[in-house]
Amino acid sequence: MARGFDDTEYRSRVARAQTLMAERGFAALLLSTEPEVRYFTGFLTRFWESPTRPWFVVVPAAGDPIAVIPSIGAPVMARTWLSDIRTWRSPDLSDDGVSLLADCLKEVAGKGTVAVPMGHETHLRMPLADFARLGGMIGPTMLAPDDGLMRSLRMVKSEAEIDKIRLACTIAGRAFSRVPEIAKVGEPLDRVFRRFQMLCLDEGADWVPYLAGGAGPAGYADVISPASSRPLEKGDILMLDTGLVYDGYFCDFDRNFAIETASAKARDAHHKLIEATAAGVEAAKVGATASDVFHAMDRILTGGAGGSDAGRYGHGLGMQLTEWPSLIPDDHTVLTDGMVLTIEPGIEIEGGFGLVHEENIVVRSDRPERLSPFADPELKVI
Amino acid sequence: MARGFDDTEYRSRVARAQTLMAERGFAALLLSTEPEVRYFTGFLTRFWESPTRPWFVVVPAAGDPIAVIPSIGAPVMARTWLSDIRTWRSPDLSDDGVSLLADCLKEVAGKGTVAVPMGHETHLRMPLADFARLGGMIGPTMLAPDDGLMRSLRMVKSEAEIDKIRLACTIAGRAFSRVPEIAKVGEPLDRVFRRFQMLCLDEGADWVPYLAGGAGPAGYADVISPASSRPLEKGDILMLDTGLVYDGYFCDFDRNFAIETASAKARDAHHKLIEATAAGVEAAKVGATASDVFHAMDRILTGGAGGSDAGRYGHGLGMQLTEWPSLIPDDHTVLTDGMVLTIEPGIEIEGGFGLVHEENIVVRSDRPERLSPFADPELKVI
Repeated sequence: MARGFDDTEYRSRVARAQTLMAERGFAALLLSTEPEVRYFTGFLTRFWESPTRPWFVVVPAAGDPIAVIPSIGAPVMARTWLSDIRTWRSPDLSDDGVSLLADCLKEVAGKGTVAVPMGHETHLRMPLADFARLGGMIGPTMLAPDDGLMRSLRMVKSEAEIDKIRLACTIAGRAFSRVPEIAKVGEPLDRVFRRFQMLCLDEGADWVPYLAGGAGPAGYADVISPASSRPLEKGDILMLDTGLVYDGYFCDFDRNFAIETASAKARDAHHKLIEATAAGVEAAKVGATASDVFHAMDRILTGGAGGSDAGRYGHGLGMQLTEWPSLIPDDHTVLTDGMVLTIEPGIEIEGGFGLVHEENIVVRSDRPERLSPFADPELKVI
Repeated sequence: MARGFDDTEYRSRVARAQTLMAERGFAALLLSTEPEVRYFTGFLTRFWESPTRPWFVVVPAAGDPIAVIPSIGAPVMARTWLSDIRTWRSPDLSDDGVSLLADCLKEVAGKGTVAVPMGHETHLRMPLADFARLGGMIGPTMLAPDDGLMRSLRMVKSEAEIDKIRLACTIAGRAFSRVPEIAKVGEPLDRVFRRFQMLCLDEGADWVPYLAGGAGPAGYADVISPASSRPLEKGDILMLDTGLVYDGYFCDFDRNFAIETASAKARDAHHKLIEATAAGVEAAKVGATASDVFHAMDRILTGGAGGSDAGRYGHGLGMQLTEWPSLIPDDHTVLTDGMVLTIEPGIEIEGGFGLVHEENIVVRSDRPERLSPFADPELKVI
């Protein structure tokens, strides 16, 4: 697969954004996080791992986006489709891009509204003091919430984006099929984690930003722990949940494995998770809501009790490991063609321990398309 | 090495924080980012990769910190030394922890000042709209900048922290020594990147959040690019720069390799980088400033012209890939025992292409201690 996207992909994103901006009366959109900047530019680097420098993209009401970035990023940004790239030598302790950005916003937006993502699942990636200073420079009434604009854009994926997520899923599927090479009785869990990441890379992942999991005789108490050094034991249920990246797009799904033998309880729990997954997929139709998908799974998992402390049964997926919407009772987002979702039911076996299962799909006008290679109902014994 | 830290480490951090809070008249400290939360709690998870849920720690003027977190994190937080853990089921689209946090702050801080990191190299990791709502709930005058408090705490590392960084450096050093296994003529750079990450994991890294680099006959034009699929050629200079993590602490250094043969220009450039590194290390004395270290290197690299567009010749290092201070002319931070720094000189060979070298040290009362296994002056040919 070719890296990146054609310029037409970015132009289409900008056009969609500008249509929504016109509806809302926004003069410009100000973006500061990695996925927001990359969404309109294609600027792809792992350098965001460094929290030191702020990076900005300004989308005007008409015309191409403008990058306002540290000079260290100029060579990479120059390889994108953008032509208006404004740089300063960062870090600058007295003015780290703030006045350069203010000048750009005044030029582009005049006295109009500059929209900034401020809602659920968004952050501002610049120091708060600098944001306050920016507001003072351009007039404090100009910076306003984007009213969910970026959410509604990014929640629906293009076919080109879906192709990348599908490939990330394929790579992870190959890595999962090789887990018998690395997991057996006596193998410490942290070593399994390290070696699973190696398998993901060996199968073609660019990098492995996320790996979680657990192992125990009745499953695991949570799904966000780092690995302990406890060796795997006969009868353990091992779960690995990975978000690996290919060309800037994530997969996010897991697999459960029984070590040498599986208890009846564990097998039954796995069956029920697969059943709930199927119900969730079946419910993920165009026109249904995120809440509908939640309830379809919850009826099977808890008899309709309303979920668990994990909080949700799945979520959006794309340039980030988790995105909008959330599969929870109160999320009434209407599903449309091109939304990529994880379907992630969980079930308790005993005493707070249990299993979680996860698959990735894309909502389609007819029936959902599977992106991850769906697991068998039978818990795999290795 | 044992994972995590003794409770005494966290109690000492809290005591230092509370001393600074008393000096500044703060009633509480409000923290929201991964390193800030972990600094006081030991809460370690890769789940921060998911941007969906906010997480908070409140440090009162006296007494232990309080965690205000999504219930999905309760089992992991319960394994830390904290006893006051308050949870809500997140994501909650109508109130994602805001009122729970407001209640906690009102209880802890009364009408006093709640300090929030707002300065250089900090972010707020919660939606801006929720931060505004929080301000309204607890009284808008109460949320104030932390006046560099977290910066001054985290910039000086404990011996227990330095032990972890040293081990991360050792692991990366072993991986770099195996680069001849994976880099040769005809090998595409992106495959070298994938396989280098596998080497880091094989040598004991928990994960590899950061890898950058480049390759070309006169070096590389920037140090933040993802890998291309261009095969290595005879005479290329290959650079790999990794920030791998062991138990939550980073290393950050690079190595240059000449593929089969090295030009005189490349060898000379590498010599000069090693000379500049030595000068930087020599200058990194207790009582000197970050600026002094910059100038010691810049005299060798540019004859004192004031650096390059990369912006700096090194930085702090610890729970994040890059931390305060910056080795730039305007950073007058006074170096003290226990500050961990990267020494990172760069030099142009021709037409915007050149080399960068990087090592990791800790400032000591006598002379700096090397944390990374320092490279030889001779550019390594493989």
